[in-house]
Amino acid sequence: MKQGTAVPTEAHMKAALQAYVDAYNRDDLEGILALFAPDAEVEDPVGTPIMRWPEFSEFYRRGVAMKARLALAAPIRGSHGNAAAMVFTVTFQAETGPVTVRSLDVATFDEDGRIKTMKGYWGPDDSGAA
Amino acid sequence: MKQGTAVPTEAHMKAALQAYVDAYNRDDLEGILALFAPDAEVEDPVGTPIMRWPEFSEFYRRGVAMKARLALAAPIRGSHGNAAAMVFTVTFQAETGPVTVRSLDVATFDEDGRIKTMKGYWGPDDSGAA
Repeated sequence: MKQGTAVPTEAHMKAALQAYVDAYNRDDLEGILALFAPDAEVEDPVGTPIMRWPEFSEFYRRGVAMKARLALAAPIRGSHGNAAAMVFTVTFQAETGPVTVRSLDVATFDEDGRIKTMKGYWGPDDSGAA
Repeated sequence: MKQGTAVPTEAHMKAALQAYVDAYNRDDLEGILALFAPDAEVEDPVGTPIMRWPEFSEFYRRGVAMKARLALAAPIRGSHGNAAAMVFTVTFQAETGPVTVRSLDVATFDEDGRIKTMKGYWGPDDSGAA
């Protein structure tokens, strides 16, 4: 955690995570990707290799192609630093039918308010047929 | 994220976070502290200084003294690594009356299944009179 450097406001960070949810829910790949910094890192699920541009743009493209629908399970949380977090379920239309993942995302933001890191917490037990 | 080293099972990590909630809810300070590794670090809320033993034992002692009651807002999430996460509200009995915090905790675990890091994500906008 950097101390003493500019950090985005709590309201900004929460709005960015809400925008991420909303962009997914209208199949808006560009809207998702516009939230990320040029040096952003995505680890989803946590415990698998970190993705950078353009790896994670392909990751999100696949998500949008599978009509991912995100439903928040609780209000988005802020922090006293440069991080915000949210818990949600996401349902994909896979070839075998709908699949639901119970996930929880933690994002950190750079000084320009863009997502610097995004980590998705969900395990093998957190996904299954919807 | 360490790769290729032993990590606790998803079931173990989720049970540890549930035990953390349950211990708080029965005012069991020792039950909370027994979950932590000797070199554990607690950052709660994220953006404030990291606490180590015995700083965080005092932090939890105060929480128990204020009769903290935790209510999960969604099922606990695992990961594909050594982390698990949960979203909850916690209500404290402060001198001025009950206070609720909408929080979200992310824990990482050591190879012995003890909590290595615990980060609490909540911002100024996430707490208020209950």
